[in-house]
Amino acid sequence: MSAAPEGFIAQLDQWRARMEDALSRRLPPPGRLPQRLHEAMRYSVLGGGKRVRPILLLATARALGLAEEQVEAAACALELVHVYSLVHDDLPAMDDDDLRRGRPTCHKAFDEATALLVGDALQSLAFELLARDPGLPDAPAVRVRLVGLLAEAIGSLGMAGGQAIDLQSEGRSLSIEQVEQLHSLKTGALIRASVMMGAACVPALDARLERALAGFAAPIGLAFQIQDDLLDELSDTATLGKVAGADRERGKSTHPAILGIAGSQERVRTLSEAALKSLEPLGAKADALRAVADWLLARRN
Amino acid sequence: MSAAPEGFIAQLDQWRARMEDALSRRLPPPGRLPQRLHEAMRYSVLGGGKRVRPILLLATARALGLAEEQVEAAACALELVHVYSLVHDDLPAMDDDDLRRGRPTCHKAFDEATALLVGDALQSLAFELLARDPGLPDAPAVRVRLVGLLAEAIGSLGMAGGQAIDLQSEGRSLSIEQVEQLHSLKTGALIRASVMMGAACVPALDARLERALAGFAAPIGLAFQIQDDLLDELSDTATLGKVAGADRERGKSTHPAILGIAGSQERVRTLSEAALKSLEPLGAKADALRAVADWLLARRN
Repeated sequence: MSAAPEGFIAQLDQWRARMEDALSRRLPPPGRLPQRLHEAMRYSVLGGGKRVRPILLLATARALGLAEEQVEAAACALELVHVYSLVHDDLPAMDDDDLRRGRPTCHKAFDEATALLVGDALQSLAFELLARDPGLPDAPAVRVRLVGLLAEAIGSLGMAGGQAIDLQSEGRSLSIEQVEQLHSLKTGALIRASVMMGAACVPALDARLERALAGFAAPIGLAFQIQDDLLDELSDTATLGKVAGADRERGKSTHPAILGIAGSQERVRTLSEAALKSLEPLGAKADALRAVADWLLARRN
Repeated sequence: MSAAPEGFIAQLDQWRARMEDALSRRLPPPGRLPQRLHEAMRYSVLGGGKRVRPILLLATARALGLAEEQVEAAACALELVHVYSLVHDDLPAMDDDDLRRGRPTCHKAFDEATALLVGDALQSLAFELLARDPGLPDAPAVRVRLVGLLAEAIGSLGMAGGQAIDLQSEGRSLSIEQVEQLHSLKTGALIRASVMMGAACVPALDARLERALAGFAAPIGLAFQIQDDLLDELSDTATLGKVAGADRERGKSTHPAILGIAGSQERVRTLSEAALKSLEPLGAKADALRAVADWLLARRN
């Protein structure tokens, strides 16, 4: 988990620039009616964010020999859904956060009703892209698989379900198994989908490669959330772009709270090794994906 | 707009019973984790509702010779999306309603965070059904069309956009053209999608029949909303199952407020005639669809 090499940093910047442009072209223009809603959608999606999920999908696509143009719309769908979840999670009825990506949250910059509709409309736009974006592979079966994977990952047995369990668990102590189950839904499901949607863009993928990617995606999803909780403990608000130490204040059961800092770091290492081992059948083509995994699990914000 | 004949009332009851069962089977069981979220999803979707959108789709399917089993999942997707919009619209940040379908609204019966997640998860479940439900025609291109039609109808240029315009318009006077534009998004888009998703279930529909259905769906969508606003003026809370007179209290520009009661009724008649005329190419097979239109525009709740 050393610092990422310079060439890889340049690659991340290039992917982020691609995504900023790709998202901007796919969001309704700010002048279009209803203007306030469209401004708030653009405010929430553009101009920030690590773009973790799109980058995972783009690196998976490279490992499978797909061109970035062919998967760009699917990467946008992932990011739109991730931003919808942030906008809704930040609302007063949920986590009541004022700061996100170093700027006022959507309901602070606009208003609660608008933030609610921003999340709703971003979710719909994600599915509309998967159904209609002309850039995706010209195979209806690919689009259907993408819609199924995304919908499953974010529904009541995925991301939304994880958020519901998280809310019910505040102030209660969970076992480490319960925390891992919660994380595998709340964050893990969409991280896994980022990899598996990349795989789904290949019309007939070798089953062995699909298994290798599934074996990579699951531990990465969990390790990513543990790293997030470690950062919440160890980092400061300026570096994070959101309020640090918030988990502890809310009495949330997290890996650092249960296993301690060193124990949590060890768990990240074990998961990371399992993930990388699973990638072996993909050979050198998966080097970018390996670099993304290293970057995710060594990040500072 | 006479009272519906007895045989048609029995047909509506049969369709509603089918939908109650179809929805119940597709919602996660109440005991499944996260239990509170799943209970709230089932509470919001089951045990009430006119099922207008599924019924429009089922009647369209009949006019095109499709079996009900083949379109049932698409009808469920429409209703799930409609209920998601009700649950979110009822939240304090939006319309702040306590009563829906004669029962406490979701955030009253549960809590705001749960209601937010119920809406989010119902939207995802709708798209998951369109992608994966085994009952739909076995053609990926049909599923892709269904996802595209539904996503477009409910996004920022459809239902969510209409809700945003509606919120911005409270207390301001709109022209009748602006009111009709608002309604064509807020309610009309999903009503139109109900008919056009029925049409999309036919793998290769004759373009003339598709145009006939589109020409039926648009005026019905608008007339349905005018009828809704007439009921808000003329009916009482017990009959409606939601608080009557709420539009006027909020200073909303509606057809009754601008054209008066008689003028609004006349507008419903004109739209209804245009819709029925457009159905002519479908012949007697569309009789159930005609009966649905008559029922929608003569309803009392």
